[in-house]
Amino acid sequence: MDRKWVYLFTELEAAEASAGDWEAVRGLLGGKGANLAEMTRIQVPVSPGFTVTTEACIAYLGVEGEFPADIWEQQIEALQRIEATTEKEFGNPARPLLVSCRSGAKFSMPGMMDTILNLGLNDEVARGMVELTGDARFVYDAYRRLIQMFGTVVRGMHIEVFEQVIAAKRLAAGVSSDSDLDAEDWTALTQRFKDLVRTHTHAPFPQDPLEQLRAATEAVFESWNRKRAVDYRNASGIPHDIGTAVNIQTMVFGNMGETSGTGVVMSRNPSTGEPGLAGDFLVNAQGEDVVAGTRKTLDISAMAERFPEAYQQLCEIADKLELHYRNMQDLEFTIEHGTLWLLQTRNGKRTAQAEVRIAVDMVDEGLLGREEAVLRVSPEQVDFFLHPQFDEDARSEAQLIASGLNVSPGAAVGIVAFDADTAERWAREDGKAVIMVRPETRPDDVHGMLAAQGIITSRGGRTSHAALVARQFGKPAVVGVESLEIDLVDREARMGDITIREGTEISIDGMLGEVYLGALPTVVPDVQDSWLTQLLGWADEFRTLEVWANADYPDDARRARALGAQGIGLCRTEHMFFEEDRLPVMREMIMARNHLERDEALDKLLPLQRNDFEGLFRAMDGLPVVVRLLDPPLHEFLPDHQELLHELADLKLRLQHLATLQEIDDTLDEIRAKQDFLERTETLLETNPMLGTRGVRLGMLLPELTRMQTRALFQAATQCMREGVDVKVEVMIPLISHVNEFRQQRRLVETEAREVMDEEGQEVPYKIGTMIEIPRAALTADEIASTAEFFSFGTNDLTQTVFGISRDDAESGFLVHYMEHDVLPANPFATLDIPGVGKIMRMAVELGRGVRPDLMIGICGEHGGDPKSVEFCHEMGLDYVSCSPFRIPIARFAAAQAAVQEAGWRPMPAAPRDEFRREEAAAPVPTEEEAAVSH
Amino acid sequence: MDRKWVYLFTELEAAEASAGDWEAVRGLLGGKGANLAEMTRIQVPVSPGFTVTTEACIAYLGVEGEFPADIWEQQIEALQRIEATTEKEFGNPARPLLVSCRSGAKFSMPGMMDTILNLGLNDEVARGMVELTGDARFVYDAYRRLIQMFGTVVRGMHIEVFEQVIAAKRLAAGVSSDSDLDAEDWTALTQRFKDLVRTHTHAPFPQDPLEQLRAATEAVFESWNRKRAVDYRNASGIPHDIGTAVNIQTMVFGNMGETSGTGVVMSRNPSTGEPGLAGDFLVNAQGEDVVAGTRKTLDISAMAERFPEAYQQLCEIADKLELHYRNMQDLEFTIEHGTLWLLQTRNGKRTAQAEVRIAVDMVDEGLLGREEAVLRVSPEQVDFFLHPQFDEDARSEAQLIASGLNVSPGAAVGIVAFDADTAERWAREDGKAVIMVRPETRPDDVHGMLAAQGIITSRGGRTSHAALVARQFGKPAVVGVESLEIDLVDREARMGDITIREGTEISIDGMLGEVYLGALPTVVPDVQDSWLTQLLGWADEFRTLEVWANADYPDDARRARALGAQGIGLCRTEHMFFEEDRLPVMREMIMARNHLERDEALDKLLPLQRNDFEGLFRAMDGLPVVVRLLDPPLHEFLPDHQELLHELADLKLRLQHLATLQEIDDTLDEIRAKQDFLERTETLLETNPMLGTRGVRLGMLLPELTRMQTRALFQAATQCMREGVDVKVEVMIPLISHVNEFRQQRRLVETEAREVMDEEGQEVPYKIGTMIEIPRAALTADEIASTAEFFSFGTNDLTQTVFGISRDDAESGFLVHYMEHDVLPANPFATLDIPGVGKIMRMAVELGRGVRPDLMIGICGEHGGDPKSVEFCHEMGLDYVSCSPFRIPIARFAAAQAAVQEAGWRPMPAAPRDEFRREEAAAPVPTEEEAAVSH
Repeated sequence: MDRKWVYLFTELEAAEASAGDWEAVRGLLGGKGANLAEMTRIQVPVSPGFTVTTEACIAYLGVEGEFPADIWEQQIEALQRIEATTEKEFGNPARPLLVSCRSGAKFSMPGMMDTILNLGLNDEVARGMVELTGDARFVYDAYRRLIQMFGTVVRGMHIEVFEQVIAAKRLAAGVSSDSDLDAEDWTALTQRFKDLVRTHTHAPFPQDPLEQLRAATEAVFESWNRKRAVDYRNASGIPHDIGTAVNIQTMVFGNMGETSGTGVVMSRNPSTGEPGLAGDFLVNAQGEDVVAGTRKTLDISAMAERFPEAYQQLCEIADKLELHYRNMQDLEFTIEHGTLWLLQTRNGKRTAQAEVRIAVDMVDEGLLGREEAVLRVSPEQVDFFLHPQFDEDARSEAQLIASGLNVSPGAAVGIVAFDADTAERWAREDGKAVIMVRPETRPDDVHGMLAAQGIITSRGGRTSHAALVARQFGKPAVVGVESLEIDLVDREARMGDITIREGTEISIDGMLGEVYLGALPTVVPDVQDSWLTQLLGWADEFRTLEVWANADYPDDARRARALGAQGIGLCRTEHMFFEEDRLPVMREMIMARNHLERDEALDKLLPLQRNDFEGLFRAMDGLPVVVRLLDPPLHEFLPDHQELLHELADLKLRLQHLATLQEIDDTLDEIRAKQDFLERTETLLETNPMLGTRGVRLGMLLPELTRMQTRALFQAATQCMREGVDVKVEVMIPLISHVNEFRQQRRLVETEAREVMDEEGQEVPYKIGTMIEIPRAALTADEIASTAEFFSFGTNDLTQTVFGISRDDAESGFLVHYMEHDVLPANPFATLDIPGVGKIMRMAVELGRGVRPDLMIGICGEHGGDPKSVEFCHEMGLDYVSCSPFRIPIARFAAAQAAVQEAGWRPMPAAPRDEFRREEAAAPVPTEEEAAVSH
Repeated sequence: MDRKWVYLFTELEAAEASAGDWEAVRGLLGGKGANLAEMTRIQVPVSPGFTVTTEACIAYLGVEGEFPADIWEQQIEALQRIEATTEKEFGNPARPLLVSCRSGAKFSMPGMMDTILNLGLNDEVARGMVELTGDARFVYDAYRRLIQMFGTVVRGMHIEVFEQVIAAKRLAAGVSSDSDLDAEDWTALTQRFKDLVRTHTHAPFPQDPLEQLRAATEAVFESWNRKRAVDYRNASGIPHDIGTAVNIQTMVFGNMGETSGTGVVMSRNPSTGEPGLAGDFLVNAQGEDVVAGTRKTLDISAMAERFPEAYQQLCEIADKLELHYRNMQDLEFTIEHGTLWLLQTRNGKRTAQAEVRIAVDMVDEGLLGREEAVLRVSPEQVDFFLHPQFDEDARSEAQLIASGLNVSPGAAVGIVAFDADTAERWAREDGKAVIMVRPETRPDDVHGMLAAQGIITSRGGRTSHAALVARQFGKPAVVGVESLEIDLVDREARMGDITIREGTEISIDGMLGEVYLGALPTVVPDVQDSWLTQLLGWADEFRTLEVWANADYPDDARRARALGAQGIGLCRTEHMFFEEDRLPVMREMIMARNHLERDEALDKLLPLQRNDFEGLFRAMDGLPVVVRLLDPPLHEFLPDHQELLHELADLKLRLQHLATLQEIDDTLDEIRAKQDFLERTETLLETNPMLGTRGVRLGMLLPELTRMQTRALFQAATQCMREGVDVKVEVMIPLISHVNEFRQQRRLVETEAREVMDEEGQEVPYKIGTMIEIPRAALTADEIASTAEFFSFGTNDLTQTVFGISRDDAESGFLVHYMEHDVLPANPFATLDIPGVGKIMRMAVELGRGVRPDLMIGICGEHGGDPKSVEFCHEMGLDYVSCSPFRIPIARFAAAQAAVQEAGWRPMPAAPRDEFRREEAAAPVPTEEEAAVSH
């Protein structure tokens, strides 16, 4: 024998020896085969069977349909070993052995042949089994299932062919459910199915069990090259040359009477994470009965009464499997005549709350190390705690009417609108909450999507226009709802059996991809959740990257600090000027005709700014506060240009109808004032304001502005210091492109700061640094670092300039097209573009630290709160990330994960619902520490 | 003797030995001292003298006013050697030695003490000289000049003190000119001047000649630290620690009767470059009489008759000095009692035409190598041949009314306007040519400057607002016209004695910094000038960088080819669409509601584009043509948004006054059409169009556009090839930021090209490449080069994105402020910013050639025609620069200079008028080849 193509479930050691390591075993036996062998090894009751390797598949496909002889020989040999173990025989009506045949590649792959059950049944064996069991209904039901699966899966027949015949039989029998058909009916149907196979495929259903098995195995191999499978691999980046394994396993039956049963359980509560089995159970039933919901299931606790021993055994198995996989398990089991068999185990789906609690509990139980626990929970799951979610009790009561892809998380409630204009009208004019429901979306629909609370589409995948735009704007969305049909003539939508009219209230859960009828109440999960607090505490121990906040007001600062901020990385001073009581003074400053007028306006702004800064310093007592000098173009503070034009026209019109000279005089004054505003606005309007007179350029043209802001800052600092506040001021100059800009502003700030400190008799320790948000600043970071004490990457603007993309224009424009068509892997404004923007950031870090090794470097763009970007910031060796207060827990978590991974830990996937099958196959490599815990 | 502080003019070898090399001699003796010693060495008659070194100055300043004793001792010793040579004696009335004392640093420095003449005169010596010369008027005129210069320069008195006394004397004598004062007057004035010195400085004018000399020397040293000198050094980047030398030289007099005389000559004609002396001469006069224009000078040819021997000697000296300096010389000389003395030689100022002819002639004469000739002429001088200039004959007739700094070259004629609004009104409304005349300009004046033909200001320097904006927009300008006074009340300007009213016609020459009364006729210099052609021919031999042209139409292409273009580096296809007959079709394409309508419009555009391309290919037969696909945002092709709004309002108004239903129907149709335009325009409007949907992004959203352009291009190519034209097509994709954009468009182009070639049965060799004009493209140039066959740097957009500057907004805005205040050394849109933009370009070149060593790389931004940028492109190893046709000769020249310099040749400055004094001090290092020629 040249090569071992077939491994019994009991031969895991041989497979490991042959493959080399654990990962390679999954490659050799496929994910399912490896799992079955593993369960067998740890003595979980798995019905005997064997795996035909992926190598066999490759060999088979390589010789174009010629099944290499020794593969089949080894398969027969393995079958004989099973026969010996089970004391049954394949095709022997006296002690029949029935087997299932399942595909199982290294990665789970929809689109491949899945399962054929009951192989080994034929006319003779069926008769034998009726004698043995006395249950003809059970036997012929099983037999017709085999014929049906063989016909569809091996011979490629349409399932409808069989379903129509059953439907006709139900009609004839006058019953509405298959379960009401009796033994006679199934016997007749079995005969009819055999005829159907012969007629449709020009070949009889094979009575030879070995022929059945061989055909089934070959069908699995051939399904590897089926179009749907190839497409799936292309889309998922799975190689085409790794092949699939085939698993042949002894059948067990839960529907063999009152001593049999079946169930599906989680090893812990998937909603809350609470310990203890949770799940459903049925007596005298098959697995699909539990899943299909056609019979009312019992709570798993009922099993404890009906099958106390099996229940006890199941609990032990669940514990054992948790210990083995170090994760909550989702188990399928069958009891056949009182004997418990495990059919499957996999990591269980769970809510974010459950994920967090389970991770923490498992550390307490010694199943996981703290590092692993931190890696287990995804930053997105942490995000869950920060947004409203549907109340879980209400959800369990609610009517689930459809489900689809969970492309944009969050909970939304609203009335259904079938087009963008309606959505916008109802939302904007009637102030209603709307869910936009469309077959798919296009750029024309964006205004409706923006107005809506959430989006549902019947078509499209994760990178569809709807999905991209929804994520873009943070709208919960469910796409690819296949059951959804929209009838735009009658203005109604059908989802399965339900029909809803436009205007009906529904709820969507973008995290789970589910749609409910009616308005579900929402709750905000408790961020103070003790398990989350525990986990974040561990995260803080591991991470080296600090997490600061972007906060403009004292309230923001307090919130940020409560959420764990270690400093303010960005205080946008302009936000203070947009406040209602300040805007008029800001406008006076801008409209000033000379220095005197300008200084007067600045004098009025000074105490307001000082007051804001004092609040910030008090809130951040002891922590650094980075204050950015005024950044936006001045025209943003002036009235809208178009509006001014209209108002002016109105005033001139009014002039014609005035009676008194006084009125005319007043109106003329008003016209003159508006005219002034208009003219000033026009001189400030720019073709490309993003690249215009803003940032440091303002301070260069209006040094008095820089002086006022510096004065306010240092007056606030001295005042707070006298009160005993520990003030750490960092002055940040925005939009530097040339070191000379920085030098000039630095001198201005230093001079003014010195003056205030002398006046107040109080020294204030402070730093002056700059944003790096223009490519030229990054390219000449060495020059800039020679005079700047800190850098903060402004990655929003840096992404705009490095890409040459105006975010305002692109994100609802061509960028969506680019993501839909895979031109860009992700929206660079959401996740840092590492090959481009990241490259120039690395340059800046190296150049900057080259001349100033202790240069403090942070990031204050929105990327500071994006997990992947945070990871990159950690790798680059930044000192901190600064993000909006609500993203702080996520950033703390992402920073910890980056540090833990850098230390050599590998993440264990946390089983997000839709990724389940992929994740199932990618179980963790046990580290030494884990190994110590679990063995 | 520790150190040699003093060198006789005859001791050049000793100075060289001490200093080490030629350059160091200039550092030791100063520029003037080194020149005098050099002339002495080559036996040009220079009156004897010596130089006190810069080291002496440093030593003197170092000990804070204590003159190191041995410096003075060496000076006396040198004086004694001069006395021996001249057989005269310092302070001896019988055979008096008079000397001048002049400062002379390594670099010429305005703001330092300059000259004191006639040192050695005192009461006794004066009496002796009267006896010796019999010319009391001459002697006392000389004596009072000494006292006056001593008083002002050494003792810091105001010159007015002396001038008032002379003026009073003129009044008393009843004469109007100093030259009408007689011996008695000057004798009396001498006495009065001595009294003035004593009264104002509390110390008498020293009668001891040695004391005079010592005080003069110390005054020169001290002037090194005078504020004006320090400011000048700060501004020019001259180090503060190099000190100045002092030159002491025997006086000679041209005003000692009819056997004496003085003159200023050029060794060749400075206007035309024609060989032979050109200049002015006066008998019995001093040098300043020639320069001041108070006496009518004779042409130098007159000297041949009056002083045939001296004239012959002068011709020989001119030849000798030309041979020595290998440049046209500007000589000052004096004849004292028939003996010729050279006072000064320096490289002469000349016109661009003369510069070119002289360079070529000198090569023919064996004075220069071809490489040096190419280095001698600046690219700006080549530019001269490409623009209108004032007719030289007319200029010599014209009335020069003022002169100032030549900050922006070119000739302009227009009527004077004293403010920006007037300038704009006259220019825009009345269609008049205007010269804007202002004390200085500010940002508010820019609209007037743009409307004007040229600009004059009374204040400001080379980096003043006026100068910067003028250069920016190519407006001839003369600034810092000190004689200009503007009276805005009477609306008139005074320039010296002339008063001109607003509206008067004047002419300005921005190349020379001169202002003339009236309208001078202009001529376009002959670009076919045979000397220029010769020089450009040599340039082409030396350069390795190719010069291509940016040309959109066949006419442009032909012009470019005639000027030497070796290819079309950029054909902007959008320019074709802006043509009157195409714009409506382009609009149809943009307004299309579906693919069908769009394809229809594209079908109409196709033959028009094809036709344009055919013309280009024919014009460029045998040379490459790079065609860029459509680049600008689509809204640029639509009517102006504001205009549409107004038109729509008008139409709606009209509706109310219509009588017939037909009229109403028609108007409603019109309203609907406008409304459509408006809506489409609004969807296309972007906040930052520069960073919006343009370039490749258009081709990504509208692939049919790329296909149409490709089809037109390849149909044109196949057609031309059938006619026998050698077609070299290069398709250029603009605005790439991610390699995927390029890949996608490349596939589109290749597919369509293949189709056309198959249809036409004609293969077309072609390349597909990209612009590098977005930082991300440069940063990922390796990825892009793996699929792009050529790069072309679009440095206009690259500068915008690397700097984060919108050119439209900045160049008339903050960028001017930045240049005025030296925040930026130059306008980065005119000259490549090498530390920033250049750095990322270098990265792109290295990354690109790293994966594709034969990657063709060019530049097609405006920098392709800027000499400094061309030099950088050569250094980086680009293959070509592409510029507007008119810049081609300049680019050819700049490319040649870069290559010649790279080969180790150093440029010899070409003496632009205002830089003269700096340049004088920076004479060339003779290379081996030069040395071979000149010795």
